[in-house]
Amino acid sequence: MNLKVVLVEPLYQGNVGSVARSIKNFGFSELVMVNPCELEGQARAMSSHARDVLENAVHVSSLSEAIGDSSIVIGTTGITGSKFDEHVRVPAYSPRELKEKLSGVDGNIAVLFGREDQGFTNEELKMCDMITSIPTSDIYPVMNISHAVTVVLYELSSIENCENPIADAFDIKLLYEHIDQLLEDIEYPAHKKDKTLLMLKRIFGRACLLPREVQTLRGILRRIQHKFDGK
Amino acid sequence: MNLKVVLVEPLYQGNVGSVARSIKNFGFSELVMVNPCELEGQARAMSSHARDVLENAVHVSSLSEAIGDSSIVIGTTGITGSKFDEHVRVPAYSPRELKEKLSGVDGNIAVLFGREDQGFTNEELKMCDMITSIPTSDIYPVMNISHAVTVVLYELSSIENCENPIADAFDIKLLYEHIDQLLEDIEYPAHKKDKTLLMLKRIFGRACLLPREVQTLRGILRRIQHKFDGK
Repeated sequence: MNLKVVLVEPLYQGNVGSVARSIKNFGFSELVMVNPCELEGQARAMSSHARDVLENAVHVSSLSEAIGDSSIVIGTTGITGSKFDEHVRVPAYSPRELKEKLSGVDGNIAVLFGREDQGFTNEELKMCDMITSIPTSDIYPVMNISHAVTVVLYELSSIENCENPIADAFDIKLLYEHIDQLLEDIEYPAHKKDKTLLMLKRIFGRACLLPREVQTLRGILRRIQHKFDGK
Repeated sequence: MNLKVVLVEPLYQGNVGSVARSIKNFGFSELVMVNPCELEGQARAMSSHARDVLENAVHVSSLSEAIGDSSIVIGTTGITGSKFDEHVRVPAYSPRELKEKLSGVDGNIAVLFGREDQGFTNEELKMCDMITSIPTSDIYPVMNISHAVTVVLYELSSIENCENPIADAFDIKLLYEHIDQLLEDIEYPAHKKDKTLLMLKRIFGRACLLPREVQTLRGILRRIQHKFDGK
């Protein structure tokens, strides 16, 4: 999936710089702008280490040029459909739903963001194949444009966190056996033991123990037992 | 779930204003700052219509005061665990995983964001119960602080988009019967008809038709048939 961000007539250069930064943070690179404001020092400052994205951005004079050969054009809007709105803003999907709809899709995708003050015209929205809207508070639904870009790119990025591989079932089993043994050692009341073991299993279970954590816990148990043995 | 955002020694007032805006956008209201920079015109300008969040923000002089009575303290970091890091930054969950882990949890939660330049100290991270990290590009992983806040609050907010209720199964069935009839009317080759009907079902199926869309499609079919009848 090739994704490009299209800003339609952005008004504030600081926002453009921030958008460039977000594009690079999420592993994308393409920025296209339709008739942007002047881009000078503040845009560069806010782009931080994404100055390359800002400098390589393509400036065009119409939305259709910006869309170019994109197969899927996605419009973002803070205003979702109303009954009076004839198909223009409905259906609007959340960025999460959008991600699901696009899963497995390969091709050129353009994600459009409108003017900071006026958003898109209806004519511009009609050029979009899908509409996305970030769920926000009714009290103050209007997001900063670079924040909106950040949420959409966060969802559409395929970057995954480094994983946190959980401990092997076998090691976890050894941990529970070790705990059982310890409870025996301390003559824990037999009628409570199973319940307490289960409680510990529930606590450690929902914590999703990491391999090192299991080893450290077993290390503690061993030391306790050594102490019992007077070692 | 009561959520407060804690900024530890934020350096740039524009960022603080942007964070306030994001807090209000996602339906939250509490902002606590440990020794913030001076907050003047630029902070207010970037907060836009969230000036109330900025003005009601609590200023404290230590992180433990900021944490106060929070039951769960979440630290956000761009740097995830390494082998040399003794439990401080591991395990780190993505904001999505964090949301899942917190689902059903009720209580006071503090989400901490570090300094723009230095992040958190290890001592500060040790005060956290859980660590979250936004999956970003290795090439440029450092996000703007207000962008990081936005992604985390987007995940933890319980605001849902207005739903797009899909059409009733009964109406969809009528639509397919109507299409079937139309194919008969145009003497569509019998050996192709079922395959074509299935293709249409696949297309409309994955589009998840809305009620009004089904009605409009049936309106088109009716008009075509009227035309056949010379009406």
